[in-house]
Amino acid sequence: MNGLSFRLDATDGAARAGTIETLHGACETPLFMPVGTRAAMKVMTVRDLCDAGAGIVLANAYHLMQRPGADVVRDLGGLHRFMGWDGPLLTDSGGFQVWSLAARREMDADGVTFRSEIDGDRLRLTPESSVAVQEALGADIIMPLDHCIEYPATRGAVAEAVATTVAWARRAVAAQTRDDQALFPIVQGGVHEDLRVECAQALVELDAPGYASGGFSVGEPSETTWQVLAATNEVLPAERPRYVMGVGTPQDFLAAVATGVDMMDCVLPTRNARHKYAHTRRGTLRMRNLEHARDPRPLDERCGCVTCRTHSRGYLRHLSQIDEPLVWTLLAIHNVTFMLDLARSARRAIREGRFAAHRAAVLAELADDAP
Amino acid sequence: MNGLSFRLDATDGAARAGTIETLHGACETPLFMPVGTRAAMKVMTVRDLCDAGAGIVLANAYHLMQRPGADVVRDLGGLHRFMGWDGPLLTDSGGFQVWSLAARREMDADGVTFRSEIDGDRLRLTPESSVAVQEALGADIIMPLDHCIEYPATRGAVAEAVATTVAWARRAVAAQTRDDQALFPIVQGGVHEDLRVECAQALVELDAPGYASGGFSVGEPSETTWQVLAATNEVLPAERPRYVMGVGTPQDFLAAVATGVDMMDCVLPTRNARHKYAHTRRGTLRMRNLEHARDPRPLDERCGCVTCRTHSRGYLRHLSQIDEPLVWTLLAIHNVTFMLDLARSARRAIREGRFAAHRAAVLAELADDAP
Repeated sequence: MNGLSFRLDATDGAARAGTIETLHGACETPLFMPVGTRAAMKVMTVRDLCDAGAGIVLANAYHLMQRPGADVVRDLGGLHRFMGWDGPLLTDSGGFQVWSLAARREMDADGVTFRSEIDGDRLRLTPESSVAVQEALGADIIMPLDHCIEYPATRGAVAEAVATTVAWARRAVAAQTRDDQALFPIVQGGVHEDLRVECAQALVELDAPGYASGGFSVGEPSETTWQVLAATNEVLPAERPRYVMGVGTPQDFLAAVATGVDMMDCVLPTRNARHKYAHTRRGTLRMRNLEHARDPRPLDERCGCVTCRTHSRGYLRHLSQIDEPLVWTLLAIHNVTFMLDLARSARRAIREGRFAAHRAAVLAELADDAP
Repeated sequence: MNGLSFRLDATDGAARAGTIETLHGACETPLFMPVGTRAAMKVMTVRDLCDAGAGIVLANAYHLMQRPGADVVRDLGGLHRFMGWDGPLLTDSGGFQVWSLAARREMDADGVTFRSEIDGDRLRLTPESSVAVQEALGADIIMPLDHCIEYPATRGAVAEAVATTVAWARRAVAAQTRDDQALFPIVQGGVHEDLRVECAQALVELDAPGYASGGFSVGEPSETTWQVLAATNEVLPAERPRYVMGVGTPQDFLAAVATGVDMMDCVLPTRNARHKYAHTRRGTLRMRNLEHARDPRPLDERCGCVTCRTHSRGYLRHLSQIDEPLVWTLLAIHNVTFMLDLARSARRAIREGRFAAHRAAVLAELADDAP
């Protein structure tokens, strides 16, 4: 028992449409997952998330174990109640953050020791302690501690990271004590197709409820990403959901879907909002630009989000120009809705067997660049 | 015609309960007005404002004339459409801001010249141009340019400021060309009861749809404020709403209501939210404090706001500790709801003839300081 089930509803080439059921509700794939790293979205209330139609929301165990502490979240009723989000949740182990954020990390066969980037405290994560943290948090989907590796890296170093990642995934599965959480092992292997395939094959033996691919978007050429991802997906079982971590431009989302990915997450919609950029079907708008100052149109005439229903580009330009904090919220609501709509329309196209044409049309409009 | 009417529904001692009708809807007094200085609340969407039960919302003409410019707001459909707020709006002329923010201001009989605090541009406001700006913005209630004076000031200087304020109020009324905006003259006079009364008497001759008292909360002893305000309110006509500008702690709100004031505004609920303070019936909570870390209770068990319905003190403490921007929104929603609830319960008490006892009970609970 792990509380999760997946049904494949339709395929169209390698692209897939499915349904994930969790103990906190169902959601349809392909799915974009907004990221609330520290148990909060930047900057949306849970009601804004509901309105945007969010399915699964992410948080990060690496950050939450440091502040406020996994025990605090557990004592306050677990992550769902803590965040006030009654829908499905996924926690990342923070493997990626250990490698990218923590100061002076040292890996040994058993785990990783690092200095907190907050206060320099000496912290330790093992595959087992990472599961324990995520069991205290209580998300529906949890991730094992893995060994992320930088790009470029030597083939030898990548192979070693794969071996560690597989060994740690096995230990994570063995360490699980809750029967209501689905642990998704993470495929690593850099840009080496054979190492990715080898890693995936080893992880499939765990008969996990879902699988993730990690270690992308670290500087590798994106064509390589899709090629390696496609090869990985051929090895992963069709009847389990596939999650690619940290992929998130509209173009990348569709490229990943085309390789057979079901779930993606990215901070880009909210980060872009903070920097005053808005996603639209006709490309990205820089809201500070003078051209928007007297524009009465919404950001995207086909968007139904509360920002587009309520405010003009001119208003959003005003708020952007003066750095009024409300603009972050209004653009985050829009950008997240945009990504969720993108996922929904991809899903419809897959079910109707016209994903390739749909993708081409969306990409052409995105490149139109005359919003 | 000015689009505004006021009905006095009940009195209880000097305290009053009434109803203001505007072309954008009615609201009941005593009324707390949230402040969206630059046409945005820090940090609440208009839907958050609706949910909180906001009646009239404020914006500031001094800021909006500089950015984005009154003509931009007018061209985008006026301030209501610009902000996406279909309820009643009030714009302050920015007299207070000219005196407190602008660099190198110079007053002459005709108006005031100052350097913009944004870019050093030379700007000019006269009673007439201030009305023109506010007509372009299009709020339901507008304020004349007045002469705010610092505290302490010599009696001579205060008397001079009163003379200017009265002369400019007359010119503002004469300059109005729209028949759907209510201009409220502003009583000045510092802490001098006789000068306040004299100023009010002169302004009453204008037969305005409402009257304001300005120049408080500038450092004077608060007992003086209420005494001077009470004397002013005796001169102002009972059948017109009375607005005290910039008064906003819960205690001050009730004190002003006791003198016969109907409307108040203050940035305090949102400014406190930014600094991670929460208003409660039992005093103010500093949300960074460790004592809240594992507290599962809402901020205020009797509050119905979305923050209190959704989140624990523990969660809000976590967000406060890490300076997560969402906490500003969640605390602003709560603090504004708190002030609106305070106004509602005061209104009920006045209608039921028990305002003095109600006020004493609220003050006692606020001072309880054991939240």
